[in-house]
Amino acid sequence: MALSPAVANVRALTFDVFGTVVDWRSSIIREGRALGAAKGLQVDWEQFADDWRGLYQPQMEKVRSGQTGWTKLDDLHRMSLDILLQQHGIGGLSEVEIDHFNHAWHRLDPWPDAVPGLARLKRKYPLATLSNGNVSLMVHLARYGGLPWDAILGAEPTRHYKPQPECYRQTCAYLSLPPEQCMLVAAHNSDLVAASQVGMRTAFLPRPTEYGPGQRDNLRAEHDFDAVARDLEDLAELLGC
Amino acid sequence: MALSPAVANVRALTFDVFGTVVDWRSSIIREGRALGAAKGLQVDWEQFADDWRGLYQPQMEKVRSGQTGWTKLDDLHRMSLDILLQQHGIGGLSEVEIDHFNHAWHRLDPWPDAVPGLARLKRKYPLATLSNGNVSLMVHLARYGGLPWDAILGAEPTRHYKPQPECYRQTCAYLSLPPEQCMLVAAHNSDLVAASQVGMRTAFLPRPTEYGPGQRDNLRAEHDFDAVARDLEDLAELLGC
Repeated sequence: MALSPAVANVRALTFDVFGTVVDWRSSIIREGRALGAAKGLQVDWEQFADDWRGLYQPQMEKVRSGQTGWTKLDDLHRMSLDILLQQHGIGGLSEVEIDHFNHAWHRLDPWPDAVPGLARLKRKYPLATLSNGNVSLMVHLARYGGLPWDAILGAEPTRHYKPQPECYRQTCAYLSLPPEQCMLVAAHNSDLVAASQVGMRTAFLPRPTEYGPGQRDNLRAEHDFDAVARDLEDLAELLGC
Repeated sequence: MALSPAVANVRALTFDVFGTVVDWRSSIIREGRALGAAKGLQVDWEQFADDWRGLYQPQMEKVRSGQTGWTKLDDLHRMSLDILLQQHGIGGLSEVEIDHFNHAWHRLDPWPDAVPGLARLKRKYPLATLSNGNVSLMVHLARYGGLPWDAILGAEPTRHYKPQPECYRQTCAYLSLPPEQCMLVAAHNSDLVAASQVGMRTAFLPRPTEYGPGQRDNLRAEHDFDAVARDLEDLAELLGC
C-alpha cells in the first residue's frame, strides 16, 4: 500500500512474532479450553488469555528496570501463570500439567498469510525473529507452525527486552548489517517507533483482532513507516518477492 | 554403526559446521581459482586454503586468551587473509574484491549427504549450529547450501569460541535443555571431547578428505562417543529418523 525509497537498501527482514506472525490469543484460549475440558474446570478462558498477556509487560519491566536479573520469557510466563491460576481459582493441576499449559506459548497458530508470506519473503531476504520470546520458544513455535526463519535473534541473544534499543541494535549486529539495512516488520506502532529510533527500516501491518473483537489500538499505522501492508503476503508483493 | 542408550534422552541436535557439514577446503580452493582466473594470478590455491585454515586456531586463541576482545570469525578471517595475501605475493585487489573473497567462507558447499541427512534429522529433532562461525556467516551458508537449521547458536551468541566450555554450555541453555539432552555432531574428536566434558551427548562421523588427500587426523572416532556414523544420512538412520 505504501513504500519508501529507503526500502531498496534493506538486506534482511526481522519480525515481531507475537501478534504479527502468530495469533497468540485464539491459541491460548484454545489451549485453555482443552485443559478445562480435560480437568472439568469452569474458567473464562478469553479473560484468562487477556490477563496472561496483561502481565507480559509488567513482568518484562522487572528485567528491563534491573529489579531482577535476566529471565527468559518462558520463566516470566510461568510466574504470571502461577499468579493467574490462583486468581482464577484453578487448583488441582500437576506440575506436568502446569508446565504443559505454560508451553501453550510454544504452540501458537500462525495467521493464515504468515507461512505463504514468509516463504515468499525468504526468497529475497534472510528472515530473523526480533521477538521478546526466548530462543527455545521461538524454535518450538517455528517447528509447530512451519515458520521458515533463518535465525532466531531478539531478546535472549541480546539480553535486552524490546523496546530497549540494545535489543534492536544488537540484532542488526548479529546480522552484520547497519540498522539502515534491516527492516522490522510488526503489527505494533510502538515497536516500530523504537526500531526506527536506532535507524532500522520499518514495515507495519495491522492485526485488527489480535486482542479480540474489541481491539482499539494498532488498527492502522500511526507514523511514517517505510512500508505499510495489509498482511505478510501483501508485504511480499510490495517488496517484489 | 554404534549407539549408546543415553541417545534416547536426546531432544536436540547441535552441529559443528566447518568440515562436518560443509567442505570448506574444496570450496575455498574453487573460490581462489575463480579469483585467480579473473585477475590473472599465479597462486597455489590448495596451499592458500590450508594456510588460511591454519591461521584459524591462532586467531581464535587471541580471543580465547583475552589478548583481544570479542571479534567475530568474519573479522578474524579477514585479518588472516590480509596476512596471506602479502605472504603469497597477491596484490592489485580492490577492497571490494578482498571483501568478496573473505566471504568465500559464506559460500561453502555442503557434503553430498548433508542436505538429505539434515532434512531427515529435522523431522525428529530441532537442529542448531554449534560452530565458531558468526551468525551472519552461518545464515549465509545455510541459504547458500540449503541447510535447514532451526537456530544459529555456538560462538557468537555465547561470546566464547570452542572448545571453551561456555560455548557448549550456553548453547544448551539457549535450547532450554540440560547438556545431557543435547547431542553435538562433529567430525573432530577434540570438539566432541570438549562437548562431553560439559555433559553433552556426542556423535562422530568421519570426513577423511576434509584436509585434502593426505589427511591423517580424525579418520576415526578415538573415544567412546554416544554414536558413530558414516555420514549424516547414516546418522539419521541410526537415530531412527
